Amino acid sequence: MTGTNHNLLITTDVVDEKSLRTLSKYSKVHKLADLGEDELDEISASIDCLLVFSWPGQLTSERLQTMTSLRFIQSILAGVNHIPFANLNKNVVVSSNAGAYSDEVAEYAWGLLLSAAKRVVELHVSLREQKWTLRRTLDKGSEITVVKEKILGVLGFGGIGSVVGRIARGFGMQVYAFSRKKSSEKEVKFFAGASGLSKVLKKSDAVVLALPLTSQTARIINSERLSEMKKDAILVNIARGELVDEKAMYEHLVANPNFRYATDVWWYRESRESLKTDYPFLSLPNFIGTPHVSGPSGLATGRPAQLAVENTIRFLRGLRPRNIVDPEEYKTSYPY
Amino acid sequence: MTGTNHNLLITTDVVDEKSLRTLSKYSKVHKLADLGEDELDEISASIDCLLVFSWPGQLTSERLQTMTSLRFIQSILAGVNHIPFANLNKNVVVSSNAGAYSDEVAEYAWGLLLSAAKRVVELHVSLREQKWTLRRTLDKGSEITVVKEKILGVLGFGGIGSVVGRIARGFGMQVYAFSRKKSSEKEVKFFAGASGLSKVLKKSDAVVLALPLTSQTARIINSERLSEMKKDAILVNIARGELVDEKAMYEHLVANPNFRYATDVWWYRESRESLKTDYPFLSLPNFIGTPHVSGPSGLATGRPAQLAVENTIRFLRGLRPRNIVDPEEYKTSYPY
Repeated sequence: MTGTNHNLLITTDVVDEKSLRTLSKYSKVHKLADLGEDELDEISASIDCLLVFSWPGQLTSERLQTMTSLRFIQSILAGVNHIPFANLNKNVVVSSNAGAYSDEVAEYAWGLLLSAAKRVVELHVSLREQKWTLRRTLDKGSEITVVKEKILGVLGFGGIGSVVGRIARGFGMQVYAFSRKKSSEKEVKFFAGASGLSKVLKKSDAVVLALPLTSQTARIINSERLSEMKKDAILVNIARGELVDEKAMYEHLVANPNFRYATDVWWYRESRESLKTDYPFLSLPNFIGTPHVSGPSGLATGRPAQLAVENTIRFLRGLRPRNIVDPEEYKTSYPY
Repeated sequence: MTGTNHNLLITTDVVDEKSLRTLSKYSKVHKLADLGEDELDEISASIDCLLVFSWPGQLTSERLQTMTSLRFIQSILAGVNHIPFANLNKNVVVSSNAGAYSDEVAEYAWGLLLSAAKRVVELHVSLREQKWTLRRTLDKGSEITVVKEKILGVLGFGGIGSVVGRIARGFGMQVYAFSRKKSSEKEVKFFAGASGLSKVLKKSDAVVLALPLTSQTARIINSERLSEMKKDAILVNIARGELVDEKAMYEHLVANPNFRYATDVWWYRESRESLKTDYPFLSLPNFIGTPHVSGPSGLATGRPAQLAVENTIRFLRGLRPRNIVDPEEYKTSYPY
């Protein structure tokens, strides 16, 4: 016990009561929802620690300037691209919640991958609209992608990516990982750099995007990259919509009817993820979209909030927090 | 080489030219499509071996009575429930093509299972109809089923069922198999008999039907069995539609909106599988249907025809064919 010389501001209601009690052993806990503007004015200078989900509108750049004691921000979301790094002092440490959603989001990636490979959505919709007959189908079958003995590219081999890869082996797929770090995973081939990315995209029958959104990864999938991929490949995105160039993707789907894009994540409009798109993706048979439910399916287990609380306690106890990110990678033209 | 004392009748065009040439080393090969009614009359009594896909309309019970030399029927379809056992002499041996489609159909089962677990079809359709917003979803997530550490029941643990079970371990699921035979599979719990079935259904979070359609398995999933299952369980059918009671399933889906039924196979109308149903399944959000493409996706690889040809050659060479079925199990009121 270090007493209550810390002041923690929690800006979300996803932290349960038990965790709040535990946190209050190590700090004075303030809940943003309980504070009026005047009360927030009063305590701002004392707050040294922030526990956030999505970035709260009240914490404007002006407000952040008054938070002169701030040293640590913990995200309950897996990524930190919503943190306004450009407005933070250099001595503020930011931790992501990497790994907290790995199992649930990796499962979801496989749900999208197989829905696309087996054309489940397209066929179900065809049946609903009475555009398919049994006879027509029973003669064919080559429209269905069989994944066994094929190559799965995983872009970003962190918590989510490595679980996606582990599941792939149950399907008898070979895994090609595009990753800055090699891991000790057996049976996974590692690739890095621009030429490594190119190799993974050219060879893969299906690709899962599991990268963080940083200045280096924003729109990493552009028209040039798409043109390197197989004409009948499947691209799955469970990371961030902005990893993919919207216009290039639409044009690629129209030009390549056997290419499939299945995504749970969407492009940003006015710095926020939005279901509004510039192109009518949902009218294409080779597009599958779901409204960002993979993360929430993890959140519902309670584990992401719990892990974020545990890491916050590391900071409050004077230990080095896990999952500290490099702010330089997030000071970009994508401030969301 | 045994000369050409065998007469083989092939009733389908899914056997490739190379296989036909190989077969003609061991028998005189007749293709039904090349024969007029008179020619068929001429050779019927000499045919000792049949290689069939779906049962051909020309081979009526009258025609079968004239095929007095018939000794062996090989199915290229996995199941044999389409063979008219009641019209066959006792000395006719029938072989299924069990195992020939295992990998492709097991993958397809997982496509349906995850589409249902992650509600991919339902969410995609909601987005198309603009019935969903990002905000609504981001608050929740519990509507998505996480499969890790859950129990998967596999009814029928033959070729397809055991591959379904192998994939399940990559997802960290525990497998409960309902099967007459135990296999040497580690980490799989085996159950048999009516009480075993009951246990599997009660405990499972998801169930895959991979049974052959026989007199013992027809409508094995009825209202009583459904009532034993968890209210939010997922039932996947990649075997035969008639394993499930149609009325009971519709009523169960309406009464239990969190229960999900995902099927690639359909009920029979006039002895043939049909997309026509007695109840409007496709209007239910907790139903996913695809037009029997799992088998064809295997057929497209060429392997099922090849394996059927290899087994036919075993018969022609005087060896015991594999996958011989017990005709007693198929002499039922489900003659399809």
